[in-house]
Amino acid sequence: MVQYDEARLDASFAALSDATRRGVLEQLGRADASITALAERFQMTLTGIKKHVGVLEQAGLVTTEKVGRVRTCKLGPHRLEEATAWIERHRQLWEARFDALETVLEELQRKEQINGRKKRK
Amino acid sequence: MVQYDEARLDASFAALSDATRRGVLEQLGRADASITALAERFQMTLTGIKKHVGVLEQAGLVTTEKVGRVRTCKLGPHRLEEATAWIERHRQLWEARFDALETVLEELQRKEQINGRKKRK
Repeated sequence: MVQYDEARLDASFAALSDATRRGVLEQLGRADASITALAERFQMTLTGIKKHVGVLEQAGLVTTEKVGRVRTCKLGPHRLEEATAWIERHRQLWEARFDALETVLEELQRKEQINGRKKRK
Repeated sequence: MVQYDEARLDASFAALSDATRRGVLEQLGRADASITALAERFQMTLTGIKKHVGVLEQAGLVTTEKVGRVRTCKLGPHRLEEATAWIERHRQLWEARFDALETVLEELQRKEQINGRKKRK
């Protein structure tokens, strides 16, 4: 069984549970950006956007670097690999279960048809 | 551009940001379970597990049905499709960007090699 870093998964999913933070990740996926540029883009105060960037930074999804007076944000070392792996494994689990249900249903239908034919005879 | 239901994404990711709730989803992916069985499985009080199941229910990831005195939990109508789609799109975006960076780097290396050869001549 795959062992997940549960604390990191908590942090990754919590970081993704806000539309602005998802927007920041989208933006940084396209190009690095300064805190000021992100604040303008998302029509937020510097304090507000810094808070969101802080949550993303704590989750390892974003890193920031200050050069002179400009703090630049870029995508961090954790690229949601674990979050993706978790979701993917679950979809497989569910799909396997639904496939199994389907097989049982088909088997039942087949038996019903056979019984139906027997009764008609 | 894909339009996401941001409120649902918020709810899905928030629901996934807790190890017990992820555990409940894993469990229900294998088989339906009663609140009592889940409380035992995760060594929690009935009140505690009900709170987690409530969060999952609000996000549409779990449904519950009470028959007699037993409340049974099963996977709900939303199967994390949107959460998966969001994460998937982002990985593609990032990968495209990294591929682009790689092409630039290769181009630079190629030029450097040519310059190196010219200097040696």
